[in-house]
Amino acid sequence: MVARTDLGRDERVVLAGHLDTVPVAGNLPTRWDGDLLWGRGTVDMKGGVAVALRLAAHVPAPNRDLTYVFYDNEEVEAAKNGLGRVARNHPEWLAGDFAVLLEPTGSVVEGGCNGTLRAAVAVPGTAAHSARWWMGANAIHAAGEVLDRLRAYRPAEVEVDGLVYREGLNAVGITGGIAGNVIPDRCVVTVNYRFAPDKSVAEAADHVRKVFDGFDVSLTDSAPGARPGLAHPAAASFLAAVGGTPRAKDGWTDVARFAELGAPAVNYGPGDPLLAHHDEERVQVAEIERCEQRMRAWLTAGRGT
Amino acid sequence: MVARTDLGRDERVVLAGHLDTVPVAGNLPTRWDGDLLWGRGTVDMKGGVAVALRLAAHVPAPNRDLTYVFYDNEEVEAAKNGLGRVARNHPEWLAGDFAVLLEPTGSVVEGGCNGTLRAAVAVPGTAAHSARWWMGANAIHAAGEVLDRLRAYRPAEVEVDGLVYREGLNAVGITGGIAGNVIPDRCVVTVNYRFAPDKSVAEAADHVRKVFDGFDVSLTDSAPGARPGLAHPAAASFLAAVGGTPRAKDGWTDVARFAELGAPAVNYGPGDPLLAHHDEERVQVAEIERCEQRMRAWLTAGRGT
Repeated sequence: MVARTDLGRDERVVLAGHLDTVPVAGNLPTRWDGDLLWGRGTVDMKGGVAVALRLAAHVPAPNRDLTYVFYDNEEVEAAKNGLGRVARNHPEWLAGDFAVLLEPTGSVVEGGCNGTLRAAVAVPGTAAHSARWWMGANAIHAAGEVLDRLRAYRPAEVEVDGLVYREGLNAVGITGGIAGNVIPDRCVVTVNYRFAPDKSVAEAADHVRKVFDGFDVSLTDSAPGARPGLAHPAAASFLAAVGGTPRAKDGWTDVARFAELGAPAVNYGPGDPLLAHHDEERVQVAEIERCEQRMRAWLTAGRGT
Repeated sequence: MVARTDLGRDERVVLAGHLDTVPVAGNLPTRWDGDLLWGRGTVDMKGGVAVALRLAAHVPAPNRDLTYVFYDNEEVEAAKNGLGRVARNHPEWLAGDFAVLLEPTGSVVEGGCNGTLRAAVAVPGTAAHSARWWMGANAIHAAGEVLDRLRAYRPAEVEVDGLVYREGLNAVGITGGIAGNVIPDRCVVTVNYRFAPDKSVAEAADHVRKVFDGFDVSLTDSAPGARPGLAHPAAASFLAAVGGTPRAKDGWTDVARFAELGAPAVNYGPGDPLLAHHDEERVQVAEIERCEQRMRAWLTAGRGT
């Protein structure tokens, strides 16, 4: 859903948020516990969406024209991403001088983001009856070598334009087996590499191929990172208005899509990003309110609401 | 399907075979290559079934009463086994003095069989966003320890009643992963233990629990082995008729079900058991014919066909 003001202001700001969450893990329905709101999505990112909806309802005449974007499929493979579909099919809907993605940052401005790629590491074997296992070669046993490399891997911390990005390489899926009495002839480990924005997707893919040298590695999906764009005047004015010391964004966010469209964009929203996707996901309601007040102050400075 | 002669002979012999195969692996349709018949099921066990069907068609007046049993679901979990269902619901249909299971043995009489059990070895973790992997604990990485133990395991060879049984412990399945951007909180390795007939199912399960000490091990299905019954007079007469030196059966077969019903039973059929379930499954047609001729000679000695 895209909604815009058209007030003839000098500057247009895009406020964007996704509506989907990762799968629930016994953490629905959402529940109150004092000032805490517990449950799937409270951090990632119904809190940020709530801020945007309240601004839309209560700031009809902002000092900058606003474009609100609410979209789907952020938590699945990049090809389905709703913001990406708008960027491909109607890039003019996303036009603006500056964008704020209301992903959870603990209400700290976060610049840029890591890139992400997923790759399938396939391990071959030879099928045989499991009662005569010595006639085959067990692909699942052989995948132990892939897991050994993952366990031994030490991810880098990379400084880009003054901010430090923490990388990661993890198995996010594994599958193997034909039947309960067959030595498996194939095991596939799906890995997710989060890489600093000093690298292109191609460079990141090369790195993953090197780590799993000797195995068949195929890229399944990817999204480039974004260098921090905080030196841009529009970003700097926002940063001055909401305060705090900016830091690097660990997770990939759709800030990279705005970067590709040429607009500086930052992450800024309520909720501890360390609790996103966590079974114990929760947010302080006071933080959602504080975030909304700061945004409102920025968008109404020099005007009444 | 159960079919019986009722000729008032002194002895009743059961000839049994299963009709299902393991999944195809690019090896259908079946094809001829000189005297070789290639394709899924040629060894395990359409060859043996062909022998039985030809005997049923061409030996209307055997010297022993015959019971033919053709059944389904031998290649899946034990609970579905067709012969097992008949044994539970109509054990009288399987009554006999001796049984020949026409599983592939390379036309060598094989006594007894290993037992088999499957167990799920579960490895826990803590879910987190894969961009902030350090907040979670990766269950797939932790499953590397299970694969390490499987790779280090050295299976025993066990002598029982003069025959040597070769054991095996193998992963036959592995599954883990929640979504492409989530550190997985659970990985399950399914293992298959083939154990010599000197052990009960309970003893075999204890052994598997010891191997995977520290992990959550749950038995999913099992079938006891059978000690070789070749000293029994009915088995000895068959052995004398078809010739050769008996050996131990590596794979679990339904011979164990006849053993439970109190009837001596052996495995004897065409096809190299090392090629059962193999992508390169194939059999010599001449061996199928030879097997049928020996069985026919045994069942018609002292009578015309």
